[in-house]
Amino acid sequence: VSRLLAVDWGSSSLRGALLSAEGIALEERAFPRGILTVEAGGFPEVFQSCFGDWMTPGTLCLISGMAGSKQGWREAPYCACPAGFDAIAAALEWVEPGRIAIVPGLSIDKAGVPDVMRGEETQIFGALQLLGLNHARLVLPGTHSKWVGVTDRKVMDFSTWMTGELYALLRRHSILARMLPEDEPALDSAAFDRGVAHALAGPGLLNTAFSTRTLSLFNRMGTEALPSYLSGLVIGEELKAQTLPRGEPVVVMGAEALTVRYEQALAQLGVPVQRVGAGATWRGLRAIADTLG
Amino acid sequence: VSRLLAVDWGSSSLRGALLSAEGIALEERAFPRGILTVEAGGFPEVFQSCFGDWMTPGTLCLISGMAGSKQGWREAPYCACPAGFDAIAAALEWVEPGRIAIVPGLSIDKAGVPDVMRGEETQIFGALQLLGLNHARLVLPGTHSKWVGVTDRKVMDFSTWMTGELYALLRRHSILARMLPEDEPALDSAAFDRGVAHALAGPGLLNTAFSTRTLSLFNRMGTEALPSYLSGLVIGEELKAQTLPRGEPVVVMGAEALTVRYEQALAQLGVPVQRVGAGATWRGLRAIADTLG
Repeated sequence: VSRLLAVDWGSSSLRGALLSAEGIALEERAFPRGILTVEAGGFPEVFQSCFGDWMTPGTLCLISGMAGSKQGWREAPYCACPAGFDAIAAALEWVEPGRIAIVPGLSIDKAGVPDVMRGEETQIFGALQLLGLNHARLVLPGTHSKWVGVTDRKVMDFSTWMTGELYALLRRHSILARMLPEDEPALDSAAFDRGVAHALAGPGLLNTAFSTRTLSLFNRMGTEALPSYLSGLVIGEELKAQTLPRGEPVVVMGAEALTVRYEQALAQLGVPVQRVGAGATWRGLRAIADTLG
Repeated sequence: VSRLLAVDWGSSSLRGALLSAEGIALEERAFPRGILTVEAGGFPEVFQSCFGDWMTPGTLCLISGMAGSKQGWREAPYCACPAGFDAIAAALEWVEPGRIAIVPGLSIDKAGVPDVMRGEETQIFGALQLLGLNHARLVLPGTHSKWVGVTDRKVMDFSTWMTGELYALLRRHSILARMLPEDEPALDSAAFDRGVAHALAGPGLLNTAFSTRTLSLFNRMGTEALPSYLSGLVIGEELKAQTLPRGEPVVVMGAEALTVRYEQALAQLGVPVQRVGAGATWRGLRAIADTLG
């Protein structure tokens, strides 16, 4: 495949890039047209208006993300783990044969309870390529964080953590919201660290979250520090549940503001971090395209 | 004290009762006039309109609950644990000396992190009287559940758990809300038990809560069962964090619909339950009044 249009179509945003043979973005576009803004049946038209001029004859388009969900352009059934590049490439959901395909997400079953991801699989495979790794433990922080174990370039295990969403719920909709400032202040490192430490030592978030209220009630923490403290509590709670041997690095990939916090929290556990530069999704889509020959 | 008006003035409700010398309610009244509905300075008028005719000469009124908070009628500073009846009676906040007093809440400090209760202390002391116990482990399920350890009729230790509030947040405001039915169906015992079991075996609520979504996504649990499953997850998470020796009873007190769930969840851990009949608050206020001589 010489000319590849890589598309990352998520719930709330739509991004695309024309990639070089090395997976470098030559041109990029972004639109506020996540799948939640597109009506059923409206996907071809949105795609055409955003990227139609790039789809010259011979161009291949690969799309990752929620575009492959039930509410997306076309449902791409999940690939069951363990799964590597090849399994995913073999399970592409072709919207237009040979021209436009959607990358399937991954699923895993643990004692009858499924877990799923869509979009992250492409970022993961891209990160492995960028870092030159065959084995890795990764975390993709976000609304729903993913912890992922990779062996021999296959995703063997993963789990979802509603950390970002819980933070937002507690921050905006719980009784704690009354104590917290309306705007999001800059990260208070000391308060964040204290939150992480309290979560790691504490009996669980259902209890520790309440300390955000009482520390404020007793004037033991300033209002501006409380969001950072609460953020430390939820991220610390997520880390506490992982098996993280000291000194074994974890690959952290995601938005800068968030990866900085995970790096700081992991430092409390003596766990070093490997960062991934931007472009993991593009690199992953390039790698999947390359398996198509 | 021969004639006692006992008042339970919470955030969202106001209840009062005229009590016999044994702490039995002779007459009861309830009003939708929780402290959140009362403007600053408006408390005497609301009290007068609700209970003025009961305040005949020689009548003592004791008020427990959020009426003693900063946003209430008059702030009653917390009593520090360990604390028993006597400590609370000595720290009554008199609104009208000899006539109307507010019962203080309890506070505890653990490694610099405070915890607090207001109103529950009265229920606890009432329950000890009703059950004839000097030592007990109690749980008061609710929006913010309290776990309480009592030795020699003193509250030695307690902790707050945002279990009910987290359930409501996840149920109504999270991504899970989309899968759940709008109305609250009757308790599905099997689904509730499965939620408790998954929480007890799982790595934490941030992760296990997501299974509510995936079990629905993969059609492994019916829509009507999901709220009970989620309820089992959050209550199981709360229980998992307690030290609960098999066979040692726990006193469970609160709304019937909730105590039934805790009893069912505790059964999975082999922990028997002691129930408390209605009227623990009235009995507690009666006991405090009796210490006044």
